[in-house]
Amino acid sequence: MYVIITYDVGEKRVHKVCKKLREYLTWTQNSVFEGSIGKGKLTRCMHELDGIIHADEDSIYLYQVNNPNHIQKKVYGQEKSFDDLFL
Amino acid sequence: MYVIITYDVGEKRVHKVCKKLREYLTWTQNSVFEGSIGKGKLTRCMHELDGIIHADEDSIYLYQVNNPNHIQKKVYGQEKSFDDLFL
Repeated sequence: MYVIITYDVGEKRVHKVCKKLREYLTWTQNSVFEGSIGKGKLTRCMHELDGIIHADEDSIYLYQVNNPNHIQKKVYGQEKSFDDLFL
Repeated sequence: MYVIITYDVGEKRVHKVCKKLREYLTWTQNSVFEGSIGKGKLTRCMHELDGIIHADEDSIYLYQVNNPNHIQKKVYGQEKSFDDLFL
């Protein structure tokens, strides 16, 4: 399946959440990751994120499409890569 | 169709982009909007955004699913509303 994950978490947890998501998905943009992932891996990823976030303050949105052909992506302006962050 | 739009734009244009997206979609989270929208309205929205952003610095990602039943959304932690921003 194909997923998009966006997060809005407390400053102290941004790095941990980002690092965890990089293990499973591709960084798209500030607070957004996406990619193809199997059901088992996704469950593990979300379980691990659940252990990092503070449920009363943070939020993570998971958008899930079973067939990657059902979602189209268009980029307006710059398509950024993770490496650009460190230039 | 159902769309998710995420943006990463220069500070000076954040307010304009946010205001424009609110005309067409629902605010989800920091830099993320989503909602059902017709093809004509979406074209207009993207055209208007194109006029706001600086293509060499900013980026807007549009994810588009024709059948809203093909996308599932799950929220972990807090589900925020736009009004929370002003509390």
